[in-house]
Amino acid sequence: MVRTPVFMPVGTRGAVRTLDTTDLELLGPPIVLANTYHLMLRPGADAVAARGGLHRFMDWQGHLLTDSGGYQVFSLAPTVDEDGATFASTYDGSRHRLTPELAVDIQCKLGADIQMALDVCPGLPAPLAEIRAATERTHRWAERARTAFLETSPRHVGDDGYRPARLEQFGIVQGGIDPGLRASSARAIVDIGFDGYALGGLSVGESRAEMVPAIAAATPLLPVDRPRYLMGVGDPARIVDAIAHGIDLFDCVLPTRLARHGTVLTSQGRLNLRNARFANDDGPLDPAVDLPVTRRYSRAYLRHLFSVHELTAMRIVTLHNLAWLAMLLDRVRASIIEGTFEALRAEVLGVWGDAD
Amino acid sequence: MVRTPVFMPVGTRGAVRTLDTTDLELLGPPIVLANTYHLMLRPGADAVAARGGLHRFMDWQGHLLTDSGGYQVFSLAPTVDEDGATFASTYDGSRHRLTPELAVDIQCKLGADIQMALDVCPGLPAPLAEIRAATERTHRWAERARTAFLETSPRHVGDDGYRPARLEQFGIVQGGIDPGLRASSARAIVDIGFDGYALGGLSVGESRAEMVPAIAAATPLLPVDRPRYLMGVGDPARIVDAIAHGIDLFDCVLPTRLARHGTVLTSQGRLNLRNARFANDDGPLDPAVDLPVTRRYSRAYLRHLFSVHELTAMRIVTLHNLAWLAMLLDRVRASIIEGTFEALRAEVLGVWGDAD
Repeated sequence: MVRTPVFMPVGTRGAVRTLDTTDLELLGPPIVLANTYHLMLRPGADAVAARGGLHRFMDWQGHLLTDSGGYQVFSLAPTVDEDGATFASTYDGSRHRLTPELAVDIQCKLGADIQMALDVCPGLPAPLAEIRAATERTHRWAERARTAFLETSPRHVGDDGYRPARLEQFGIVQGGIDPGLRASSARAIVDIGFDGYALGGLSVGESRAEMVPAIAAATPLLPVDRPRYLMGVGDPARIVDAIAHGIDLFDCVLPTRLARHGTVLTSQGRLNLRNARFANDDGPLDPAVDLPVTRRYSRAYLRHLFSVHELTAMRIVTLHNLAWLAMLLDRVRASIIEGTFEALRAEVLGVWGDAD
Repeated sequence: MVRTPVFMPVGTRGAVRTLDTTDLELLGPPIVLANTYHLMLRPGADAVAARGGLHRFMDWQGHLLTDSGGYQVFSLAPTVDEDGATFASTYDGSRHRLTPELAVDIQCKLGADIQMALDVCPGLPAPLAEIRAATERTHRWAERARTAFLETSPRHVGDDGYRPARLEQFGIVQGGIDPGLRASSARAIVDIGFDGYALGGLSVGESRAEMVPAIAAATPLLPVDRPRYLMGVGDPARIVDAIAHGIDLFDCVLPTRLARHGTVLTSQGRLNLRNARFANDDGPLDPAVDLPVTRRYSRAYLRHLFSVHELTAMRIVTLHNLAWLAMLLDRVRASIIEGTFEALRAEVLGVWGDAD
């Protein structure tokens, strides 16, 4: 049972960069992401399985979601055929293959509660015919992925406190920014039947104004009793827009990547701690974020640590940015219950709407 | 009141690398070191003073000790005269000056409880005449440093919970590895009269066998009711040897630097997590170290994180190595009380004695 909407921090290689599992427990996100592409290469799916699965490997008893690897693989100019995709490892150039069935097998070995069907993930902008072909292949792959999942996943459950009692699989809707393609893709993926539904292939170069109609075309066709996940979106303005259209789950490397470069999310927008004006600023990163481990430090101290390249500062701002985003989504949840969501959305767009 | 012997972690630029103050509170070292040379350049002593001093800047209410900057400055081939040393900043090449009086002024502004007199710190090996000249100049500088400290330090105390109620200054004994010079230096520094006494200019290239006689020549001449600090030593074998000769305080970047390269301190000696044999090792870094935040992770998991360059692993092993060294010194304290120190020393030398 996860209260939504919620933002899922990204732990690409089995850890959220700079954080450990005790840090995650402090932040309390209900779901953490991990990356199939990276983990299948290092340490490898069999190696993770031999350690008792990713939950035990990380010692994380919250939920885990593994993406399918599609997004990373398609960013590598792979050789793609109807059966799957062949690509070179970014680590050592070795060649690897991913098919819908292999992606299920690998993700079952990783053992996250929630896994994603392998999709064909074109970058934007792209010709409509290319988007259409990718979307239709995504549907055929989704069908194969679901069949493989229903057969394979029951063998990967457990009751040791780490292995989930049941695995879930989400299907991915494609269709670029074309509302008609998004709608037909949503129908096709829902017809196959998954435990949850994601919108993939967005936030890959299109503007926020182009993204919203694509979401709006798909979400009304998704079952109301299943989670709806907008992949790769972590910008506050896009998040509130997507929530207005019924999205429940988000993930993005943005808040953690920004943190490592000294950029702080606050109620007043982004602050870059490298700016000289923070050298004399005794205030906390954002007084609204009530996380003792970050709140105790002044902007001046963290600016100093960034200026001398101390890793300490990267972790503190990573904790802050994730706490800030969790606080924003807490406020969204409360506003939905209180009927004040549109006012909150306007406030967020007022601060963050121009960042796009 | 600090129970000794104790190891002081090094927070060069106002943070122990990869750790924050909450981490330090978890480890509980009574004293943390900071580096005068680095902090006088970035963010600058006046900047730290304007933020309420280093205790407040870091939000650390434990003890702080600042070195004098001598060691770093003399490693930069400075221009040295009787009055002081002129050197170029490693950050931007700008020229700076340090004299005994300026080192006091800067350290009073930083506001650590304990500060060090500026010494002349030659590398080893060096001709005896050079060591003798450096040692004699160290004595003249110590006299000037003490005069400046007694005049300046009362203006830098406070009662805000961060500014110490009283500052202390330690003198530094030099003399290379020559027992006669070490003894005469100890007499000269004790004659001036400080709140504590340090042995500087050791662990700078000489062997453990060369180091021990230099310590043994000096420590009997130091007052028994004042702390005795061996600067820059963090190797377990050298630590137990030095404790046998009456040393109370140690500092070194070794345990934290090793950690960032994946080298773990354990009861069996050093382990390098990059070694492939740890890929299947579900055990903790060292079962003897009872620190929940590090103990929960397997060697296999931390090895994986190092192999994909995750900063998370650097922090976890840094915490472990400092906890391991604190545990060793806890065991030493207990063994001294129980009269079993020599057995413990033999055990430590059995594991660590060949590392030198």
